[in-house]
Amino acid sequence: MKTKHIEGGVCVAKGFKAYGVHCGIRKNQSKQDLALLFSEVNCAAAGVYTQNKVKGAPIGVTQAHIADGHAKAVICNSGIANTCSADGVEKAETMCNLTADALGIGPEDVIVASTGVIGFPIPIGNIKAGMPSLSAGLSENGNGDFAQAIMTTDTVVKEAAVSCTIGGKACHIGGTAKGSGMIHPNMATMLCFLTTDVNITPAMLQKALSAVVEDTFNMVSIDGDTSTNDMVSILASGLAGNPVIDTEEEDWDDFSDALYEVMERLSKMIAADGEGATKLLECAVTGAPDKATAKSLAKSVITSSLVKTAMFGADANWGRILCALGYAQAEFDITKLNVSLCSQKGAVEVCKNGTGISFDEDIAKEILLEDAVVIAVELGQGEASATAWGCDLTYDYVKINGDYRT
Amino acid sequence: MKTKHIEGGVCVAKGFKAYGVHCGIRKNQSKQDLALLFSEVNCAAAGVYTQNKVKGAPIGVTQAHIADGHAKAVICNSGIANTCSADGVEKAETMCNLTADALGIGPEDVIVASTGVIGFPIPIGNIKAGMPSLSAGLSENGNGDFAQAIMTTDTVVKEAAVSCTIGGKACHIGGTAKGSGMIHPNMATMLCFLTTDVNITPAMLQKALSAVVEDTFNMVSIDGDTSTNDMVSILASGLAGNPVIDTEEEDWDDFSDALYEVMERLSKMIAADGEGATKLLECAVTGAPDKATAKSLAKSVITSSLVKTAMFGADANWGRILCALGYAQAEFDITKLNVSLCSQKGAVEVCKNGTGISFDEDIAKEILLEDAVVIAVELGQGEASATAWGCDLTYDYVKINGDYRT
Repeated sequence: MKTKHIEGGVCVAKGFKAYGVHCGIRKNQSKQDLALLFSEVNCAAAGVYTQNKVKGAPIGVTQAHIADGHAKAVICNSGIANTCSADGVEKAETMCNLTADALGIGPEDVIVASTGVIGFPIPIGNIKAGMPSLSAGLSENGNGDFAQAIMTTDTVVKEAAVSCTIGGKACHIGGTAKGSGMIHPNMATMLCFLTTDVNITPAMLQKALSAVVEDTFNMVSIDGDTSTNDMVSILASGLAGNPVIDTEEEDWDDFSDALYEVMERLSKMIAADGEGATKLLECAVTGAPDKATAKSLAKSVITSSLVKTAMFGADANWGRILCALGYAQAEFDITKLNVSLCSQKGAVEVCKNGTGISFDEDIAKEILLEDAVVIAVELGQGEASATAWGCDLTYDYVKINGDYRT
Repeated sequence: MKTKHIEGGVCVAKGFKAYGVHCGIRKNQSKQDLALLFSEVNCAAAGVYTQNKVKGAPIGVTQAHIADGHAKAVICNSGIANTCSADGVEKAETMCNLTADALGIGPEDVIVASTGVIGFPIPIGNIKAGMPSLSAGLSENGNGDFAQAIMTTDTVVKEAAVSCTIGGKACHIGGTAKGSGMIHPNMATMLCFLTTDVNITPAMLQKALSAVVEDTFNMVSIDGDTSTNDMVSILASGLAGNPVIDTEEEDWDDFSDALYEVMERLSKMIAADGEGATKLLECAVTGAPDKATAKSLAKSVITSSLVKTAMFGADANWGRILCALGYAQAEFDITKLNVSLCSQKGAVEVCKNGTGISFDEDIAKEILLEDAVVIAVELGQGEASATAWGCDLTYDYVKINGDYRT
């Protein structure tokens, strides 16, 4: 199946409108902080959530609301996480009620999410006051405002979309994500909202989403901290008119492949926009005996503070890569592995059969100074592979997080 | 049993001499880089080693040499780790041979260790050239030179010692450690050399060392990176003349308690001297259902980059502490836990029953500006407790590691 990357985000699929406003949760009046997504058609809905045992209140409310496999709207605020604060669940439900009233739907059809500082109460008054202009502004071109309104320390909007043909019909999948710090997803990710007009059952939608999350968002780490509010949700309007996807056959594979393309791009955008990051790091492990080994090794390298600082300094200190491979929870034979550092400037092999080899440090430096660097690890022990994404660790990460609240 | 903290390091126990010289592995001529410890009496010996699958060559050589439970000397260089480089094992063995020749002992009685950059060959010529002055300089006051010579990015010498009475005899335990980055010990630690004059069998010595490592060095994290060369070793000369400790009875308990005191102090010294650190962090978890849960939670908090940067900024952003507790591999009830921040300036409770409570931010800031801060987590779910040590994450960590090799 051929997919085509297209412009846009949550509004590329038929049936979706979105918008975002500033309602006053954040002090900066030019920063939108309340986002709304709406489909008049009832959608198949699926979600994947944080595995952190300390969970934001919206997580449980959303899980309850899409337990029936359907939803029509998403309400999301940034600035405050609605986590570890009194009456959090009640306030998350109030957010759904306010949204439902504004849209003339049931509150059980609303997905709710919050992102920001932990431990402070959500100012419901601001959300109530912002709701009329938010719902009035809904449009098929509102994806950019929606994407802006869910951002926290993100420095760029993160949107991705594809068009494809499934069951003979033109289909679309689009999404937006936010996330820059506290990013080390575990079976979930930072906030990501996806929409599609594909006709698919809730069960098959959930299956595709869960599988793709494993290979995309769950392979990203900015700082090793798994957030309390991570959530990926997807709404499928069915308006593409393809024969309903209700089994794991060819159409489901096509849909999963197309979904992967959108989610992989969003994952890389999150990694590249990591707090304080100057470059996107990718660790590509090949030749592994099995996929679990490849994933464990790739993620261990991408998470290492010492690898991350070396990449910031454009220092080809490959011993730190070997060290991070060595403490991963995986079994492998070090004497067979090779490591190369690659970017658009070229590639240089730095380690062969587990031992250092001589290489041109100047060429290595030139390669590492690029803003996208690939650490390629060839294990030579099988056919499995995996890729993980992250970023360098810089002075600005410390600056941003040394006093985030003030 | 009463222990008394005393001055000194590896030479406080009867029978040990030490020294350190600059042999040219490091460019800086004022930095010693080769250390030697020697006991004329044959010692009971025990060791605990890194669990990293990529291991420094000296690890295996040392394991083989103390397999018989005895040793007489330690040779250790800093600057180059002798890891992932060709002929590493042969070179580690050569280091033992050179040491054995200089001391008139067998090479199988030598413990060898290396610490520094991964992937470069050990310059055996320098070690050979330095050996005469190194062995000639051995003295009972050489502990400071020994401690200096094993340091890498450490900024302070780390020594600790106690005297105590075991089996009616005056006994001594002393040690020195190094470690500042790549510190997240797993069943081992950075380099630490301990000596004692206690009379104890190798088996009981190993049992005490392994148990104490679990609660001390294995509860330290600077940056989440488990080194390839971690090693703790202990030599017991037996010259205190106490009845031999060969069972887990009272004398063994007394020895283990005294050993704990030395190793806890060294662990805290390593944490406080973490690369770029401005303060020592301690996470004390109490009221846990079992010890494994307490350890997992304490270590998760101390390892979080977001907690570490907040502490650098003296920002009482306790939500990050809850977040780190939540993603630990442990089960607990969030609604029962309380969190306080403490230092010599006082204590402030910031979270009660899993929910934020109002507190004076100015007082919290004053507490967090101290150079030793305790994060106290009371689970209210049992009697078990654990403590982990670490440090803040600062600009200087990034600076030190952005270009460590040059």
